Amino acid sequence: MDIGFIGLGAMGSAIATNLVNTSGHAITVWNRTAAKAESLVAVGAKLAKTPKEAGAGKSIVFSMLADDSALHAALSGDDGLLAGLPKGALHVSLSTIAVATADQVAALHHERGQRYVSAPVFGRPDAAAAGRLFIAAAGAAPDLDEAEPVLAAIGQKVFRIGDKPSAANLVKLCGNFAILAAIETMAEAMALAEKGGVAKAKLLEVLTGTLFDAPVYRTYGRILVEERFTPAGFKAPLGLKDMRLVGEAADKSRVAMPLLSLVRDHLLETIAKEGEDIDWTGIGKTVARNAGI
Amino acid sequence: MDIGFIGLGAMGSAIATNLVNTSGHAITVWNRTAAKAESLVAVGAKLAKTPKEAGAGKSIVFSMLADDSALHAALSGDDGLLAGLPKGALHVSLSTIAVATADQVAALHHERGQRYVSAPVFGRPDAAAAGRLFIAAAGAAPDLDEAEPVLAAIGQKVFRIGDKPSAANLVKLCGNFAILAAIETMAEAMALAEKGGVAKAKLLEVLTGTLFDAPVYRTYGRILVEERFTPAGFKAPLGLKDMRLVGEAADKSRVAMPLLSLVRDHLLETIAKEGEDIDWTGIGKTVARNAGI
Amino acid sequence: MDIGFIGLGAMGSAIATNLVNTSGHAITVWNRTAAKAESLVAVGAKLAKTPKEAGAGKSIVFSMLADDSALHAALSGDDGLLAGLPKGALHVSLSTIAVATADQVAALHHERGQRYVSAPVFGRPDAAAAGRLFIAAAGAAPDLDEAEPVLAAIGQKVFRIGDKPSAANLVKLCGNFAILAAIETMAEAMALAEKGGVAKAKLLEVLTGTLFDAPVYRTYGRILVEERFTPAGFKAPLGLKDMRLVGEAADKSRVAMPLLSLVRDHLLETIAKEGEDIDWTGIGKTVARNAGI
Amino acid sequence: MDIGFIGLGAMGSAIATNLVNTSGHAITVWNRTAAKAESLVAVGAKLAKTPKEAGAGKSIVFSMLADDSALHAALSGDDGLLAGLPKGALHVSLSTIAVATADQVAALHHERGQRYVSAPVFGRPDAAAAGRLFIAAAGAAPDLDEAEPVLAAIGQKVFRIGDKPSAANLVKLCGNFAILAAIETMAEAMALAEKGGVAKAKLLEVLTGTLFDAPVYRTYGRILVEERFTPAGFKAPLGLKDMRLVGEAADKSRVAMPLLSLVRDHLLETIAKEGEDIDWTGIGKTVARNAGI
Repeated sequence: MDIGFIGLGAMGSAIATNLVNTSGHAITVWNRTAAKAESLVAVGAKLAKTPKEAGAGKSIVFSMLADDSALHAALSGDDGLLAGLPKGALHVSLSTIAVATADQVAALHHERGQRYVSAPVFGRPDAAAAGRLFIAAAGAAPDLDEAEPVLAAIGQKVFRIGDKPSAANLVKLCGNFAILAAIETMAEAMALAEKGGVAKAKLLEVLTGTLFDAPVYRTYGRILVEERFTPAGFKAPLGLKDMRLVGEAADKSRVAMPLLSLVRDHLLETIAKEGEDIDWTGIGKTVARNAGI
Repeated sequence: MDIGFIGLGAMGSAIATNLVNTSGHAITVWNRTAAKAESLVAVGAKLAKTPKEAGAGKSIVFSMLADDSALHAALSGDDGLLAGLPKGALHVSLSTIAVATADQVAALHHERGQRYVSAPVFGRPDAAAAGRLFIAAAGAAPDLDEAEPVLAAIGQKVFRIGDKPSAANLVKLCGNFAILAAIETMAEAMALAEKGGVAKAKLLEVLTGTLFDAPVYRTYGRILVEERFTPAGFKAPLGLKDMRLVGEAADKSRVAMPLLSLVRDHLLETIAKEGEDIDWTGIGKTVARNAGI
Repeated sequence: MDIGFIGLGAMGSAIATNLVNTSGHAITVWNRTAAKAESLVAVGAKLAKTPKEAGAGKSIVFSMLADDSALHAALSGDDGLLAGLPKGALHVSLSTIAVATADQVAALHHERGQRYVSAPVFGRPDAAAAGRLFIAAAGAAPDLDEAEPVLAAIGQKVFRIGDKPSAANLVKLCGNFAILAAIETMAEAMALAEKGGVAKAKLLEVLTGTLFDAPVYRTYGRILVEERFTPAGFKAPLGLKDMRLVGEAADKSRVAMPLLSLVRDHLLETIAKEGEDIDWTGIGKTVARNAGI
Repeated sequence: MDIGFIGLGAMGSAIATNLVNTSGHAITVWNRTAAKAESLVAVGAKLAKTPKEAGAGKSIVFSMLADDSALHAALSGDDGLLAGLPKGALHVSLSTIAVATADQVAALHHERGQRYVSAPVFGRPDAAAAGRLFIAAAGAAPDLDEAEPVLAAIGQKVFRIGDKPSAANLVKLCGNFAILAAIETMAEAMALAEKGGVAKAKLLEVLTGTLFDAPVYRTYGRILVEERFTPAGFKAPLGLKDMRLVGEAADKSRVAMPLLSLVRDHLLETIAKEGEDIDWTGIGKTVARNAGI
């Protein structure tokens, strides 16, 4: 199969490289900054000059872009993917984008007789490179069936959410919210423990040794214990952007989410105090400082 | 060994029964309502008429009481454990009580030349019956060493927190806070998902299938999905009491915990709307109703 | 003087009618729905077919539009005010709009050699009809001097905020936030008082008779006491829109405003439960219901 | 009339001095630290050695004590007011105390055939010295009638709340909550304004010049503008104590008050960061620091 792949940031590069190395498919890549494609071209990928060219003649194209506006930019205009993708072809968007954006993109493809699936991923670049991401996918069943073999090379597990593509984006946003809520929870509990004379590492040992034995507590808990807030694995402003996307969906659906408001405010406070480059787990530093630690 | 055991509520009964059945120790039990001791007497426990009597001549006494005032009542007065426990003997408190109360109780025992360990437990009555609780224990190392064999019969794992007994109570309170925070997190995410057309069960499947693969999400998530808020496994007013204990410790240590405030307010709101008998997971009902579901 | 006036909703109509009746200026009006201009034409206003026509040949044009998009629509395109307003002429925007929008509009006018002042108003239609609004105005000093005589006919007092037009919009948004915060404050205190056996009216009497003797407590307090949540004087979704504008400014400036988050969540909850037509004071109903009243 | 007066802190001294100077009544005073009574004795007050002695033979006794435990201490024991006050005599408590405490004190007096009125006051020592306090009074109507002439000398206005004494305490607590909510409101709005280029003083001018023209905004707004957080007029830990009393009443009545939780958390955070001696308006400093100011 001949696959198009749009967007070669940290996540996109890792996914595309893994596909080139393991899937046996021919991959045509495009990135706004072409230099980032060099290592992929070196291992056999073809380089497209525009998103349009990356989509031309393909039956399936994947995209992994930084945000909604980057996706819009890659789709529209004379050089855009919408102009290049053949009728009947399938666009699988791996990006974390707004629910409303996914609905718009689905409609744009539908107008042109193209097909669209949302398949946002859970995991960091190292998981992407190893094909160990988790994927939430939604769209028409035949479209999901068609995407599945490639998604199986990208991730360790694919969850089918439903037939409306944006439902997968909603689930992904819920997941990111839940991660930040777990970080806030640990941060507050650790501040209380520390001021009460119990080491953060000890508290984490008890939590992850009992009811909280999950990657979200182990991974982020260790960062909080070691206070590794810079350099950022995932910058606070990106986390804030995601929380805004959750908030927009919640506003539109008329769902009050006070815990979302709390973590959003703590991200904002963290950025105000610590700068734009801190990791989103930096809310742990904020909570500690607010406790006088 | 001859063991005293004070407090035969749902948890205390299950623990004591397990000890009688598996530990080979002679157990002398006391409960405010003697009738609750009958099944234990039937399997071989001795019945004490007062806490004092339950402690008399023992080298170690365990207690599992409903709250701080029940513990105070069992300790003090002419019939109290303080009056009965021999010099040098050890009191191991399994109850979830205030940090400040644990400090007071430790001091009271110390004045009498008695010893004290806090060893609050994580788990429900079925885990207690099976000896599968988790235990956070703190106190002087020799005291912990002495308690350890019996604790090993009570729980599947003992975490040593430190040499100040109340530190274990602080860890236990942090754990209960973290459970309620996880419930709030799922409740908000599920409300958003549901109004956006994604079934709660589907969201839970994705969460527990990825980063959130822990008992706290599986157990409480299922309750939220099935909306099993009555009959209560753990009543909301008891949860509120625990959150107040966390709040008292936080106030005293000067630690602001806005997420604690949020879950406390949601418990209060849930009780105001649904009555005193609802389960503490009922905050999921509150969150859903507040979203217009 | 010959004045242009764009936007004849409830507020715009009242302001323009007052100007026609009291200022002695010739007024040319435009509204998207021309029928709404009839009563003004009847008292002597001229009717423009487009915003461009309303601005043509004028030295000063006022606008009072529902939101940012209505303002953008009236400004842009071949029929827009930007195309009609002479070089050197002044646009005074009375609308409650985003800080960022005011910055954009100021820049658009500047590019064309036109001038711009933001002068959002405090008050309801009856105050507008009586020329009793309060006005926060910002822009270059000579521009404010030029607008002042007309603003003096519109309002009872003009506050000069500074030379950057959007600063006035920021102040206006702060004011609306403070109103909703006062409503939330009274709602919570009244719920506590009511469940404790003190009538809401009695509490309000004490508050407004002591430190809280201000219109914001008297006006909104009476609505809360009388539970006049429908028909809406100011609909909750409009209040939510304003709080979002505050939130956008706060996000951009990196200012955490947890009280803003709280009132925004309560508006959202109120709309979810009570529907889109409830007054923004309806958060009082939400707070009371959440207390089991 | 011969009046007893218990408690000569800053507020009590100012009230008692004003009574001695203006009311023409004979006053017998008691204070835990007798030295604080010297200036009163110099102007004609009699000095009692115990609260019992201050109450002996009086038909009416006023008390103004720092908190619930100080009141309990003055009431109970062999030297307490309960032991000294004649049958049928009236105790008027001016202190800010818990609703539950007022209920207990009312019951204690009732058991002894004594009468009790709660009459907490609004205002600072300078208003007390000038007889310009506001008073919320509750109790049996004849008891209020009897207290009224003296209360009229203490304050500029007496609000009758009802016949249950503790209702006045509830109203007083609501008032203190509303003050802190107004401080929080201004603090957040000022942080947003300041980072957006608008001076705090300018924002306050607009607020107090329009809908927010009340002492609470003028007085506390000026403190926030001038950042006069030390020395404290009312220390943050005392504000925290009052907010806890509100919280206890809310917990008991099952009323969720998220804004109360927010200001309580901000007080706690302020104390954690700035120390125990900062004024309760210091939450303005916390909000500003959290915004990176």
